[in-house]
Amino acid sequence: MSDSAPPSLVADIGGTNTRVALADGARVRPQTIRRYRNGDHAGLAGLLSAYLAEAAQAAPSGACVAVAGPVRDGAARMTNLDWRIDEDELAQAAATPRVALLNDLQAQGHALDHLEADSLAPVLRGAEVPSPEAARLVIGLGTGFNAAPVFTRPEGPLVTASECGHVTLPVRNAEELALADWLRARHGFAAVEDVLSGRGLERLDWWCATSAGDAGVTGETRAAAAIMAALAEGEARATRAALIFARLLGRVAGDLALTHLPFGGVYLVGGVARAFAPYLHTLGFADAFRDKGRFDSFMDGFAVTLITDDYAALTGCAGYLDARRSAPGLP
Amino acid sequence: MSDSAPPSLVADIGGTNTRVALADGARVRPQTIRRYRNGDHAGLAGLLSAYLAEAAQAAPSGACVAVAGPVRDGAARMTNLDWRIDEDELAQAAATPRVALLNDLQAQGHALDHLEADSLAPVLRGAEVPSPEAARLVIGLGTGFNAAPVFTRPEGPLVTASECGHVTLPVRNAEELALADWLRARHGFAAVEDVLSGRGLERLDWWCATSAGDAGVTGETRAAAAIMAALAEGEARATRAALIFARLLGRVAGDLALTHLPFGGVYLVGGVARAFAPYLHTLGFADAFRDKGRFDSFMDGFAVTLITDDYAALTGCAGYLDARRSAPGLP
Repeated sequence: MSDSAPPSLVADIGGTNTRVALADGARVRPQTIRRYRNGDHAGLAGLLSAYLAEAAQAAPSGACVAVAGPVRDGAARMTNLDWRIDEDELAQAAATPRVALLNDLQAQGHALDHLEADSLAPVLRGAEVPSPEAARLVIGLGTGFNAAPVFTRPEGPLVTASECGHVTLPVRNAEELALADWLRARHGFAAVEDVLSGRGLERLDWWCATSAGDAGVTGETRAAAAIMAALAEGEARATRAALIFARLLGRVAGDLALTHLPFGGVYLVGGVARAFAPYLHTLGFADAFRDKGRFDSFMDGFAVTLITDDYAALTGCAGYLDARRSAPGLP
Repeated sequence: MSDSAPPSLVADIGGTNTRVALADGARVRPQTIRRYRNGDHAGLAGLLSAYLAEAAQAAPSGACVAVAGPVRDGAARMTNLDWRIDEDELAQAAATPRVALLNDLQAQGHALDHLEADSLAPVLRGAEVPSPEAARLVIGLGTGFNAAPVFTRPEGPLVTASECGHVTLPVRNAEELALADWLRARHGFAAVEDVLSGRGLERLDWWCATSAGDAGVTGETRAAAAIMAALAEGEARATRAALIFARLLGRVAGDLALTHLPFGGVYLVGGVARAFAPYLHTLGFADAFRDKGRFDSFMDGFAVTLITDDYAALTGCAGYLDARRSAPGLP
């Protein structure tokens, strides 16, 4: 692209906040990143219009928005947000016909080819050097849980959509079944995301305090940040919750690796993944990832890497638009 | 293609038997299908050479083999068979450089666009007419369990590989946990395939007889065909096993639908799927498929269809080769 081409507009709508930035090709301009509380805005159009006015950027060359929810036929839905989010609305707000809506994990997948080396931290090293065309898998652990497989194709990466945070929580023992029963009694279902997410960790910590009957723990609810602080201090209640969390994360990540066969690597992304990363090894993540019976050694074929860049979804939106500028026929 | 082009060679290596046929384009010649017991042959090359000699077909235009096991970097491995199965071996045995190895479920995925209408039987009707580019998912239930998502791309279907039969069996109550504990004690792990397969049904039936303590049942092991015959007669032991089987199948199929979002439909294939199809509704498959808490109504977006054609994997191999003859650059 030419340096004089107008930048594109990229945004990442999460459960609480929306981040917006301008990008040149696949590169986000760091100084242009702004964060907005969703609750302060009546809709996406007003938020993006306000951003573009502030940035004095009347006509971006394209606009791509990542959404923490399913996208189908050019429209997105989010459980906790009543904004209308579709491509027509986006085209009007951003004053460009070149628009795209992506699930946020799909956006993370489109970022993989554009991340700097210092945005990646190894968790488990794979047994072999992957072939260049091997599939990869991004697993997002933050406000919610989801994943996106990334298939390398001659025309560019194909990143498919998923809602795998809503599948059955894979319990294996009486303690985990009691946790799942408790979640089902409160929420009607015990999904992966009901434990493996920020709110999930808060529920798990509370369940450890109230239902598990450990001596010396009290039953107040705590925010995820407080639980992580207590874990850092070695508190028994937080440690117990974190052990269950890391074991379930390893099991679910291993199941997803068997499901998508990402011999090019598994990538963990999201705020909760970053917060847990220092503890994964001591809490048993690797053993749980590998614990697949006669497929134990097969699991060594999958490297696991942490993405430390908090803005990777914006980079993915930029990369997605950029690839389609180079090859307009891309679906 | 010209009618005078030589046919291609297609084969499907299962856990017990290998089927071989000749195909014109994407169409298998029904009268050329032969079935061989794997145990009667020292390797794939000898089997294919014998077939080609018998068929008086010295030089097929290409060869594609489906394998019930993971394929990686042009080589396949099967748990219960020590044959060398790789593309070099295949090219030599079939006397053609145009060869391909596919996982058998990937081959089933490549068959979808070539099946006759009378090879499909509806199980659950989806709430909406799918868009033509919607993803589809094939779930195979036979000697083993596996699935393959099918993504529609401008250049043809992309069918990705999986080993999802080896993921954690998703148990939800004390009875299912007891079953999983029993499987773990015997096999080191309780995977989906350890219940959802022909051998899995036999294990489940035996467990129902021995561990579950129902009055009036005896503890002998039975072959899957005998269990299905007993189910048809309404026997209590077989009915109990079948209820657990159908519930777990519905749950796993629903989890896979959330994982791959096949708005173009879920397709059940394989001998066990065909045998169970008449009982799926009465045994609770639909309720278990839909039982996803606040995602209940979301699940109505997925139609479920049975593939009744026992030779669909051969058709998929033929279709795969044919698509690559039309577009040689396809990966």
